[in-house]
This record gives sequence, structure tokens and C-alpha cells, in this order.
Amino acid sequence: DVAVEELVRVPVVRMSVGEVAQSSIVVVLPVCKAEGKGVEVEAAPWECGMVGDFGVVEAEKGWTRWVVLPGWEPVAVLKRGGVAVAFKRAGDALQWRGRRRDAEEQILVVADRGRTEVALDDAFYLVVSGGNGRGEEGLRVEKGLKLKESGVVESLGTVVLIVRPPTEDYEDQLGTQDWD
Amino acid sequence: DVAVEELVRVPVVRMSVGEVAQSSIVVVLPVCKAEGKGVEVEAAPWECGMVGDFGVVEAEKGWTRWVVLPGWEPVAVLKRGGVAVAFKRAGDALQWRGRRRDAEEQILVVADRGRTEVALDDAFYLVVSGGNGRGEEGLRVEKGLKLKESGVVESLGTVVLIVRPPTEDYEDQLGTQDWD
Repeated sequence: DVAVEELVRVPVVRMSVGEVAQSSIVVVLPVCKAEGKGVEVEAAPWECGMVGDFGVVEAEKGWTRWVVLPGWEPVAVLKRGGVAVAFKRAGDALQWRGRRRDAEEQILVVADRGRTEVALDDAFYLVVSGGNGRGEEGLRVEKGLKLKESGVVESLGTVVLIVRPPTEDYEDQLGTQDWD
Repeated sequence: DVAVEELVRVPVVRMSVGEVAQSSIVVVLPVCKAEGKGVEVEAAPWECGMVGDFGVVEAEKGWTRWVVLPGWEPVAVLKRGGVAVAFKRAGDALQWRGRRRDAEEQILVVADRGRTEVALDDAFYLVVSGGNGRGEEGLRVEKGLKLKESGVVESLGTVVLIVRPPTEDYEDQLGTQDWD
């Protein structure tokens, strides 16, 4: 069994169908792939604020992939440096405790690139991983404590939110969060 | 007075506060400035489809400025080539019949770059204008008939929607459309 301190200290939300909608504000973030060495994460634009009456997003550099998220608090407060990393398989991002189906889902990991220091044992950080269990290099989410034990003091960013895709399964909407 | 055939044949919508919200789908479009020769309009990415469970926008090239709009029908049906041109002053985009205040508003003109031919008398087209009344070069919206009379057969795109900014003035929400 997993001890209490092993529980995730980062909000995990299940997006509802059409939810981008049900918030009075939305947030637009650049999207990066989870495959590779994290170069994309560092290259993605930092300044993606919305300006003017229409909320036009103005980034300081061009980018091809973007996502619109409801203005969930942990994301909405990011002034700059926010990024969404798209994992094709949740199980590649982090150890998944629960149904196998959950590990097979796509997820988006939203990280704050302004906070790269591995500061807290209980926080989660975006790091480059040598292997995801299938020997492929890519990004991964690791707990602060584990990184510290390995002597890692710097990450690509602190994870502020993990977004699971919409589902039609009502049970899933309840938002089980017991994974690490 | 304006004759019937002078009326606008393009939907004009007043965005509501928080409306990006109230639709179950949203559309993300690249934004261009209205100032200049239209180079930006041609340079903006054409393919901005949403893919995957999270509706990630994948453009074929990087772009810095984007806008999220509710999935209004004329915009939602654009498969590719949609662009939003930001006018700082509605009166610079087109002749404005109505209150002076309306002409001073910002507007977004959404055009379909896939339909550049000046085909219909009653349709509106995005074109480069030598002057906006203040001698500055920039984009402008012109009626098909007027363009044809001037021998113009090609535009930057057909206007599919004009978006006015949110207002707290209830009268405005009713959507007066009597301008040309």
C-alpha cells in the first residue's frame, strides 16, 4: 500500500465534455510533446497573456501547438512560464495506481517553468527521464523527495495541474486521485 | 438613407462577457493586425484544427497571436484558412452607420482565406486599402459590388463574421446590425 506521504500533492482534474465552456475565463497555453529531451519545453513561449477586449493571446514568439483550458485556479494564476506537456499515455508520465485503463489515457501536465528548483518533497516536478520503461527518452513527472534522493535539484518546472481527458464514464467524473 | 441592398450580409455579433464559455465548442484562430499591406494575413497559419481529447490546436507553422472564440456557426465551419483581423477602430474597417461610439470600438473581422474571389455583390471582402480616412495604409472591409465596380476581382478573403467586444450596455446586447 501507498503511505500518506506518497499521495499526489498536485490537483488532478478530469475535464468534462464541453467544459472549456463552463468557465467565465479560459487560459491558452503552448503545448509540448513529452517525447524528447525537454528542449521543446524550454523553447515554448513564456509570455502568453491575453490582451484587449477579445482576450487575444500575445506570445513573445511563434508556436504551433496550443491548448485552451478552463480557467482553473492553478493555471489561471500563472502569469508567465506556463506550459502544457501532452503525454500520449498517463503511465509514461508517472506511476499510476489504479485501473490499467487510467494509465492508458492521454494526459496533459501543466507546469510552471518559473519554478524549476526542486524545493518541496511533496511537490511534483517535470524532468527528463532516460527511460519510460520502454527505453525511450522523454519527459516524466517525479516527486520532489525522489529527485532530492537522487541529487537532482533542478527541474524543467513545477507541476501545477494534471488534466485528464473528458470521459463518458460517470464514475470517472468523480475524480479518483489515488495515484502517485 | 441606405437602400436594402446596402445592408450588411455578414453576421455581426456582440460578444458577451464570459461567452467564450457558454458554447460547448470553441474555435482558435490566428490574429493579424489591420495595419499594413495584408502580408500578415497571408502569412498566418492556415491549418489550425483541434486534435485529440484535449482539443489541442495544431497549426502548420508558428504564430504569436491567437484568439479563442465561441464556436459560432460561420466560424466553426471553417476547416482551414480562417483568420481574425484586429481593428483598433471599427470605423477603420468599414463605414459605420449608427452611433459614433460604435465606430470607435475595437472589432475582430473573421475572414475565410479560402474564398478570395470577389464573387457576390452582397458579400463583404477583406482588402488592402490605401487609406482609412487618415491616410494610413491598412486593411478594410469592402462590399463585393463596390469592389466589382472598381474592377477588383480578388480579395484577401471573404468576411464570415464580425465580432464586437463585450459591453455592459444592455441596449448594445440586442445587436443592432444596421451598418454597412
